Amino acid sequence: MILELINGPEDIKKLDKQELDILSQEIRDFLLEKISNIGGHLASNLGVVELTIAIYLAFDLPKDKVVWDVGHQSYTHKILSGRKAAFNELRQFGGMSGFPKREESPCDAFNTGHSSTSISAGLGLAQARDVLGQDHYVVSVIGDGALTGGMAYEALNNAARMERNFIIILNDNNMSISENVGGMSAYLSGIRTGAGYLDLKKYVTNVLSRIPVVGDSLIEKISRTKNGIKQLLIPGMLFENMGITYLGPVDGHNVKALSRALREAKKLDHTVLVHVITKKGKGYAPAEKNPSRFHGVEPFDILTGEPKKAKKNPSYTDVFSKTICRLAKTDKKIVAVTAAMPDGTGLKRFSQKYPDRFFDVGIAEQHAVTSAAGMAAGGLKPVVAVYSSFLQRGFDQVLHDVCIQNLPVVFAVDRAGLVGSDGETHQGIFDYSFLSAIPNMSVFAPKNLWELIDGMEYAMSYGGPIAVRYPRGEAYQGLKEFRAPIRHGKGEMIYEEKDIALLAVGSMVSTGEHVRQKLKAEGWNCTLANGRFIKPFDQELVDRLAKNHWLIVTMEENVLQGGYGLAITNYIHEHYPQVKVINIALPDSYVEHGNVSLLRKGLGIDSDSVIWRMKKEYLDLERQNAEWKKSQRQSMEESKE
Amino acid sequence: MILELINGPEDIKKLDKQELDILSQEIRDFLLEKISNIGGHLASNLGVVELTIAIYLAFDLPKDKVVWDVGHQSYTHKILSGRKAAFNELRQFGGMSGFPKREESPCDAFNTGHSSTSISAGLGLAQARDVLGQDHYVVSVIGDGALTGGMAYEALNNAARMERNFIIILNDNNMSISENVGGMSAYLSGIRTGAGYLDLKKYVTNVLSRIPVVGDSLIEKISRTKNGIKQLLIPGMLFENMGITYLGPVDGHNVKALSRALREAKKLDHTVLVHVITKKGKGYAPAEKNPSRFHGVEPFDILTGEPKKAKKNPSYTDVFSKTICRLAKTDKKIVAVTAAMPDGTGLKRFSQKYPDRFFDVGIAEQHAVTSAAGMAAGGLKPVVAVYSSFLQRGFDQVLHDVCIQNLPVVFAVDRAGLVGSDGETHQGIFDYSFLSAIPNMSVFAPKNLWELIDGMEYAMSYGGPIAVRYPRGEAYQGLKEFRAPIRHGKGEMIYEEKDIALLAVGSMVSTGEHVRQKLKAEGWNCTLANGRFIKPFDQELVDRLAKNHWLIVTMEENVLQGGYGLAITNYIHEHYPQVKVINIALPDSYVEHGNVSLLRKGLGIDSDSVIWRMKKEYLDLERQNAEWKKSQRQSMEESKE
Repeated sequence: MILELINGPEDIKKLDKQELDILSQEIRDFLLEKISNIGGHLASNLGVVELTIAIYLAFDLPKDKVVWDVGHQSYTHKILSGRKAAFNELRQFGGMSGFPKREESPCDAFNTGHSSTSISAGLGLAQARDVLGQDHYVVSVIGDGALTGGMAYEALNNAARMERNFIIILNDNNMSISENVGGMSAYLSGIRTGAGYLDLKKYVTNVLSRIPVVGDSLIEKISRTKNGIKQLLIPGMLFENMGITYLGPVDGHNVKALSRALREAKKLDHTVLVHVITKKGKGYAPAEKNPSRFHGVEPFDILTGEPKKAKKNPSYTDVFSKTICRLAKTDKKIVAVTAAMPDGTGLKRFSQKYPDRFFDVGIAEQHAVTSAAGMAAGGLKPVVAVYSSFLQRGFDQVLHDVCIQNLPVVFAVDRAGLVGSDGETHQGIFDYSFLSAIPNMSVFAPKNLWELIDGMEYAMSYGGPIAVRYPRGEAYQGLKEFRAPIRHGKGEMIYEEKDIALLAVGSMVSTGEHVRQKLKAEGWNCTLANGRFIKPFDQELVDRLAKNHWLIVTMEENVLQGGYGLAITNYIHEHYPQVKVINIALPDSYVEHGNVSLLRKGLGIDSDSVIWRMKKEYLDLERQNAEWKKSQRQSMEESKE
Repeated sequence: MILELINGPEDIKKLDKQELDILSQEIRDFLLEKISNIGGHLASNLGVVELTIAIYLAFDLPKDKVVWDVGHQSYTHKILSGRKAAFNELRQFGGMSGFPKREESPCDAFNTGHSSTSISAGLGLAQARDVLGQDHYVVSVIGDGALTGGMAYEALNNAARMERNFIIILNDNNMSISENVGGMSAYLSGIRTGAGYLDLKKYVTNVLSRIPVVGDSLIEKISRTKNGIKQLLIPGMLFENMGITYLGPVDGHNVKALSRALREAKKLDHTVLVHVITKKGKGYAPAEKNPSRFHGVEPFDILTGEPKKAKKNPSYTDVFSKTICRLAKTDKKIVAVTAAMPDGTGLKRFSQKYPDRFFDVGIAEQHAVTSAAGMAAGGLKPVVAVYSSFLQRGFDQVLHDVCIQNLPVVFAVDRAGLVGSDGETHQGIFDYSFLSAIPNMSVFAPKNLWELIDGMEYAMSYGGPIAVRYPRGEAYQGLKEFRAPIRHGKGEMIYEEKDIALLAVGSMVSTGEHVRQKLKAEGWNCTLANGRFIKPFDQELVDRLAKNHWLIVTMEENVLQGGYGLAITNYIHEHYPQVKVINIALPDSYVEHGNVSLLRKGLGIDSDSVIWRMKKEYLDLERQNAEWKKSQRQSMEESKE
């Protein structure tokens, strides 16, 4: 095994050409074995094996800095930098992250996770190098999908001014997670298929040089022109026009060709873009055939490509997907927008049924939100389906373009709450906070499958900005019998008793149900209410709870600051100072990768933790009080006797 | 006066060529007179007089939709659509907005304010038109400065796919608010100065056609090539490469040339970009000479161009400007980043003193934040100086690129709190909320001039992500004698008494001082504490207040939700249930344009409103109680006697 020789970033440089070829294959086998077993990102990693090898040959890590855009394609990099052994606990709680992490290795120059940040980060690293008078290379590796994100362009615009070396590697596989869209994609596609370019160049040069009538004067004049003859003949002029040298296209599965291009790139004293053509899923037939399905995978059978665990129950995404298609059937004003996630958000079905009303805008959440605002201003009813952590990119657009004008844009906020193995960058634990601070915005979170259906129906007819927020994974099918009609800003009483009230929103209603059952078993009276609307919250419901309970426990899967609980506490403090409130929410910290139920336990939002907290703060005290009073009474009665 | 004939969007079409020329001049005179008198945006409006006239001639408003990027250049549009009379109350409380507002006129198709949204919004409107089977034109007018914003590029990327007419007018004045930067700017500059292009085109065509050896075959081959001969010969290939037809450049002060270009643009069945060259400040010499100074102006003398009111006291911006320059002198790792606002943020001084450590990234807040994160990861100490409402654009980048890695990036958040006449889009009233929800982030707000100096010193040496947040306008010079050293997460006791405590942050400390003086005059004991850190807030200080006061009034110039007050209330509720808390904060709504002190009064955060609220809720009650107790005591004592 050549792979056994690789234990640090320098080891690969000791291999000969033949060994390098074997290494590529061994890495692919290793990745397939590990990921099929434990899950993770597959297709993107299979696509960059040779590219990563070429990078390690051309540069000296960790002295040279490599920034991986998004970072889910960094597995080969993790292997080559000496983290092979950690793949057994890839993306597991306490194990290795699926993304680059500075804490994990000095070879990880910058943490990534969201798309399109690498050129900005790389440029910052290069600028730091130059200000500090250091001498090393900085390389940003960005996919063509990530290039549809506006901040990549902001960075290119600035990179054009660099006066020292900065290398951008465009890893062009003609895909983001799903198929790529837009003008830039069409442009790159033109380059990829433009095999004629080089021939034409030769042809023209030959022809022109053979014509005395034209002779030097035309060629000279053309050369003197700002963009010169290159404009006509070589690809990449879009980048050249912006002031960035273009090299390519290069075969991304040919280490020799890649090495040659990187060697050239290192010579330049400004920003250079190396255009590398790769195949997503390379070397594993099922992934080559269906790279989108093999983007991020659960454990699967290598031979068939089929998942090991059959999916049983519908996910919230499935429920959203079906519901929005059903509603769109009768309401022709409904349109749907996604930022490069038709599969992930469940909008693929919509795109097939209503292609004219479907807009995949690329990895471009800002444009997704504001173009939806435009559509709403033009009389449509757009739904923007987006993961919670990616909607962060559109915060200003929600605030500035949708909500100031109070436009009827519906946000279907998927992957809200803890998402698990993707870790810090993907946990959807801030949306209650950043959405609730925005005037005119309403935020709704369904407790179960049926409430998502009802909530989406409600949202699509509401007539103002509203977010419907639901978690990753299986839709909860409990509490089916509770299905009170949705009214704006109103919650739902589930079990009404007295003494203690649980006031939960979204995914935490099911947790509340578990808490209630356990407390009931211990003899406590326990009310369970479903808040439904995080904003505006249901004051009447809180009034009702405050009148018959001495303790209210708010429960949400969001950070405490700016969330649901603090708003409730504030209301209670003002109107019912005698009532105690406990806020169950996530702490003020990022949440690493790991199994969601483990994380919930660790963060204190699973049912046992909630009960422990309640007991620690109040229940034991209350019970002690009660027991003490009881014993007092007994002794009094005894003394009477 | 031709201008008197203009009372609605159709009126301009009745004028002849000569009258149109006169109209341009009259509009310029009108704008100069009004703006010099009342203040507003000048240079950008003087630059688009002819362009706006041409748009009104070419299109039928309000049937056709025109979206003005940023919108501060929409004054001529407001005049032509029939809002002349409203200019007497331009940007005054209750008067006409300085930006497009759908509530104001059916000719305002979409509200704008922040940069780079117009192509997205216009595309959304065009898509709505197509889905609904309507028939009208949609035009987005965007400056070359706004084109440095990433979301403009996201939108261009999508606009390339339009299969019906959509017109983008690129208003190219080679400026954003300040001078323009980056690769795109250099590219456009190349087009502007590329007068040789057309000659060369003729030359080549002539020459090639005269050469039988080459003959048709070369021309044919070149034409067949995807990008064809156009690549060589005409400007705008960057846009053509993306799939957008390019027309131009056109003289933006020639109505006839503009009209011809717009006529051409209307014929196309896809997206077309009309490149218009304008001069910012056109027609008013001082503004032509110094467009940046005449971007947004206070009332000024038309003859001299000098402001009518001499500036007296230093602004917070001035204080920041001097402080960061002083600190950078000794600490060579300090670098400064602005998103196209070197003047507004006060970084111009820094850029002159330390050009190698200064980065103006264009209107690109996302890149500003993430490149600063890169610089910090590379060992520098970057400060990003940015207006509060524009930092909203970088929310995900602060959360995802700076704070996950806990990088030492300092945010100098200017124009925080109410900003006045720019209105809804520019009020900086959400930053406590969106920054406080982010783990690892610290938020500091100085009470006065000296505390900004100390706070910046502290922040630059802190070693983690921290925002220093200060308002627009003059730095408060009161409470000078209170200058306790800054300690992390610690506030400052100013006047310590008992009974009632005011716990204020930032600009509200001075308001608190006024409240305190007035209450003292009425005989109340009143403590004043300066919170300083919004996050983490000072628990010790709150403990100290809670022990000796029955009422704590939190005071902040930020919306209530997610802000300082709720965090304090929650802490008090948990630990000191007997203490009452009132939160003085901004309500859950956008704040329109108007004089800041008027707005403060209307929103209930001036000292009188605070006192009124305190009395309404507690003080009168408490006084009645006290008086009642006193009278009880008296009558008891009397009965004793």
